[in-house]
Amino acid sequence: MKATAIAPTNIAFTKYWGKKNEKLRLPENGSISMCLSDLLTTTTVEFSPEFKKDQITINDDELEADEAERVVKHLDRVRRLAGIEYKSRVVSTNSFPSGTGLSSSASGFAALTLAAASAVGLKLSEKELSILARQGSGSACRSIPSGFVEWLDGNTSESSYAKTIFPANHWAIADVVAIVSEGKKEISSSEGQKSVSSSPFMKTRQSHMRKKNILVKKLIKEKNFKEFGELLEAEALELHTIMLTQRPALIYWTPGTLKIMKLVGHWRNERLSVYFTINTGQDIHLICEQKNIRKLKNKLKKLDFVKEIIINTPGEGARLTQSHLF
Amino acid sequence: MKATAIAPTNIAFTKYWGKKNEKLRLPENGSISMCLSDLLTTTTVEFSPEFKKDQITINDDELEADEAERVVKHLDRVRRLAGIEYKSRVVSTNSFPSGTGLSSSASGFAALTLAAASAVGLKLSEKELSILARQGSGSACRSIPSGFVEWLDGNTSESSYAKTIFPANHWAIADVVAIVSEGKKEISSSEGQKSVSSSPFMKTRQSHMRKKNILVKKLIKEKNFKEFGELLEAEALELHTIMLTQRPALIYWTPGTLKIMKLVGHWRNERLSVYFTINTGQDIHLICEQKNIRKLKNKLKKLDFVKEIIINTPGEGARLTQSHLF
Repeated sequence: MKATAIAPTNIAFTKYWGKKNEKLRLPENGSISMCLSDLLTTTTVEFSPEFKKDQITINDDELEADEAERVVKHLDRVRRLAGIEYKSRVVSTNSFPSGTGLSSSASGFAALTLAAASAVGLKLSEKELSILARQGSGSACRSIPSGFVEWLDGNTSESSYAKTIFPANHWAIADVVAIVSEGKKEISSSEGQKSVSSSPFMKTRQSHMRKKNILVKKLIKEKNFKEFGELLEAEALELHTIMLTQRPALIYWTPGTLKIMKLVGHWRNERLSVYFTINTGQDIHLICEQKNIRKLKNKLKKLDFVKEIIINTPGEGARLTQSHLF
Repeated sequence: MKATAIAPTNIAFTKYWGKKNEKLRLPENGSISMCLSDLLTTTTVEFSPEFKKDQITINDDELEADEAERVVKHLDRVRRLAGIEYKSRVVSTNSFPSGTGLSSSASGFAALTLAAASAVGLKLSEKELSILARQGSGSACRSIPSGFVEWLDGNTSESSYAKTIFPANHWAIADVVAIVSEGKKEISSSEGQKSVSSSPFMKTRQSHMRKKNILVKKLIKEKNFKEFGELLEAEALELHTIMLTQRPALIYWTPGTLKIMKLVGHWRNERLSVYFTINTGQDIHLICEQKNIRKLKNKLKKLDFVKEIIINTPGEGARLTQSHLF
């Protein structure tokens, strides 16, 4: 009863922020994202009647009971579905920093969902896996399917899941991540999201999200990079506007984030077509066409405050590793 | 026909951003501010039939024709009122950096208005001076009266002016300015303001500004520092989120601005009661009670990226210097 899964993080072009159902993690609005080829979590889950308790290890650190609670709750969901009560060992590794806005909870809960479901022998469809992953961490549902993905907000647990809208090879764009973080964020996304309704602008945002999602899908379909880039950059600023106007205000940017936000505008003036987007964190995602990766990377390399550059193309969703397929 | 005037900049607790009449500079909403004791512009204006053209010198630099245009237009307003056509020499000096969000246009146009009107012998009331100053630079109207000031938005030129709501000695608070700027801002406030309606959130902002102004006046009256501080910090963030969601986006903060925004939250956790506000620029204003100035200054002194610290108490409005009174 053991399986290993790999899942990518995803970059949201339109963002998830605010839940219409806290317990089921139903989002206020649908969102459009892309799975990332090189930001990956690998998770092995083993269930056994011999284990006395759930033991969760992430990046070589064993979690304390309070830290492990959200993972244990997710394992409970899988155990309920499988009708077993065995405890488990979970070993998970990220290829990138955690808790800095790179969405490790998305890749983490997607890999956990697939590995755990496989370990207990559940035969779940992609849709069912996405629904299950969502209950662990909302954006994890977008890391189950491959390529360009839409998360349907839904009004019930069964209707809120993600699906592929275009395969990974549909469009040769890239997400060049610049790591500028200075430690984990002070307030987690789960926590920060609870006070979203204190922003005076949330209602207006909700009133136009449906239209925005329709537009971004059209621009991806048509491969209209300029308008797509303008839309996703404005959407990232809008997300951060909501957070900045919440009470208490969430200020997730760091000086490095801000420096690159401004440089991106200058680079566009120099005819390098690149746009930024930022999740609920500090690290910044630079979206360009793949033909411009090298030029962009050279610019980023010159910045001493950029600690690491990770180049992603549109990637596959969650998958089992060959060695543990059964 | 010569006079010298001194005028302060002012810090807005509720902000001016967006005009309902571009030409008359009637603001979308009223605003509440405080004149600053130590951010001053001193301006001498002389009219003479011997001058061939208007000559404008700011901080020892003579302005080129295009740069001088806005000042010359303002001198024209004064000449029209006085019924003269003489050209003038204007010499103006700021005690602080220009074009970095410290509102040099507010103090500049207030000093210019008073000096020019006095030089030509116009006997204008404070209200008339405020109306005249507003036409040069909107927020300049708030630098004519003293102390705590309200700018009534008005629907006509005659009803849009600023007046003292409490004298400077009403409340012992301070505005400790941290200079963190790295050069002038790339887009001026006048320019940036023109696209304010492209922010999807401007309507919501306008719908609550009247209530916010009533509340901030109440908090100043009651000297309720905590709620006053929370309000002005949230208002500064709201102003900047409007700018961030305009198209094109205006990103006025610098890394130094952001660092201090975050530190202010930490300092409050350490029981130093301080709140930030930011105008349309980079330099950051820290509002505290005067008893905490020393403690705050010591914290700022330790930050190597803070280039200068300017301590302001509530100050007087525009006034003529003794030497040129006539």
